Amino acid sequence: MTAPKSLSRSPWSTVRADTIVTSLLTIQTSGRGFVDLSADIAKFIRDAGAKEGAVTLFIRHTSASLTIQENADPTVLQDLITALDRLAPENAGWRHDTEGPDDMPAHIKTMLTATSLHIPVLKAELALGTWQAIYLIEHRARPHRREIVLQFAGAAG
Amino acid sequence: MTAPKSLSRSPWSTVRADTIVTSLLTIQTSGRGFVDLSADIAKFIRDAGAKEGAVTLFIRHTSASLTIQENADPTVLQDLITALDRLAPENAGWRHDTEGPDDMPAHIKTMLTATSLHIPVLKAELALGTWQAIYLIEHRARPHRREIVLQFAGAAG
Amino acid sequence: MTAPKSLSRSPWSTVRADTIVTSLLTIQTSGRGFVDLSADIAKFIRDAGAKEGAVTLFIRHTSASLTIQENADPTVLQDLITALDRLAPENAGWRHDTEGPDDMPAHIKTMLTATSLHIPVLKAELALGTWQAIYLIEHRARPHRREIVLQFAGAAG
Repeated sequence: MTAPKSLSRSPWSTVRADTIVTSLLTIQTSGRGFVDLSADIAKFIRDAGAKEGAVTLFIRHTSASLTIQENADPTVLQDLITALDRLAPENAGWRHDTEGPDDMPAHIKTMLTATSLHIPVLKAELALGTWQAIYLIEHRARPHRREIVLQFAGAAG
Repeated sequence: MTAPKSLSRSPWSTVRADTIVTSLLTIQTSGRGFVDLSADIAKFIRDAGAKEGAVTLFIRHTSASLTIQENADPTVLQDLITALDRLAPENAGWRHDTEGPDDMPAHIKTMLTATSLHIPVLKAELALGTWQAIYLIEHRARPHRREIVLQFAGAAG
Repeated sequence: MTAPKSLSRSPWSTVRADTIVTSLLTIQTSGRGFVDLSADIAKFIRDAGAKEGAVTLFIRHTSASLTIQENADPTVLQDLITALDRLAPENAGWRHDTEGPDDMPAHIKTMLTATSLHIPVLKAELALGTWQAIYLIEHRARPHRREIVLQFAGAAG
């Protein structure tokens, strides 16, 4: 099952890095769905003068989460919502339903995706692949105000 | 599907940060279920004199994992266990069952949750949201001894 | 549900750490399955002179992902593939199928596993548990060329 592989590794770069830049991003979602944060994170990197290191995103909620997914075809995002709904359906006998039928599924979807992301920064740019975007996923049906801690650690200036 | 959004970003703070503090946390679980580690991680941050940066948790096992989830209503944790059991049921034709029917489901549940967490530290405190707690999830039916590497990187003193 | 626990925490080590070493690992996969990267990451750590800190892996794709899983019994990896296929089946009414029936399931499987991993390095070695290996999971049926950013941050020399 572990496939054979051929691989290469680039020459490495080394920098002195001792700067941490932290900020809090606040997002108003409009209910269930994806919010593309890529431009906001790129702007943070630029404003912070980040050169080489990594940026961490940490979402301060348990009914919304983070993921890195395709940025091209919007049907991918629609299908991801469908997939999450199938994995964590409403009205499936959950005990916790104090805030409605979308409450417990939102917690489950958060557990199955990411609360924190860690993305390298190289040559002052996010090291995302061509087809990657950074998304907040709002799992609650109604709009919510969401907070994400942004933190760059590395070489800046 | 990508919802429109309004957002704000706070002024950022910048610190000189060149300290790494590492420790190993050992937990004795009592079988399947959640163990709240929040107070232990907060104590590590305090003892290390951590001021600004991030703490990493890394669990050194493949049948127990980490997650950040709601800290208020215990039925959330019960429902999360139910959800994981439905996603990775016992007796579902798994080939790997050398340690019993809970063995392979434990690996699947670990894959679907987190092996490492990365949580920002701001003003000497974990940047958790109001409703967030840090949990170890024991996926095996019987008690196990579990090791978690704790590592703070940033400004301390 | 939150189980009582007994625990210990080791004395901590503190180092001055201000080095970031970054490299790009390119993998040729041979289609669906796991590729064990553990030896490659260990070599990167060694070549970089890494002593204490953490290594980040970031995969620059949305149809292949990363996980830390058992390194011993190959049936575990077979069952994990089966589990992912059950959670994200082909021909399940997905809208996005431009690249074939394995296209959308690959995105879902990526969302359910990890795009980035963060592994502590202690005493110049990866702090993996005895049974842990670092895997790339190729979710597409056919072979693909995959890029992973490797980044060590900490004390080196």
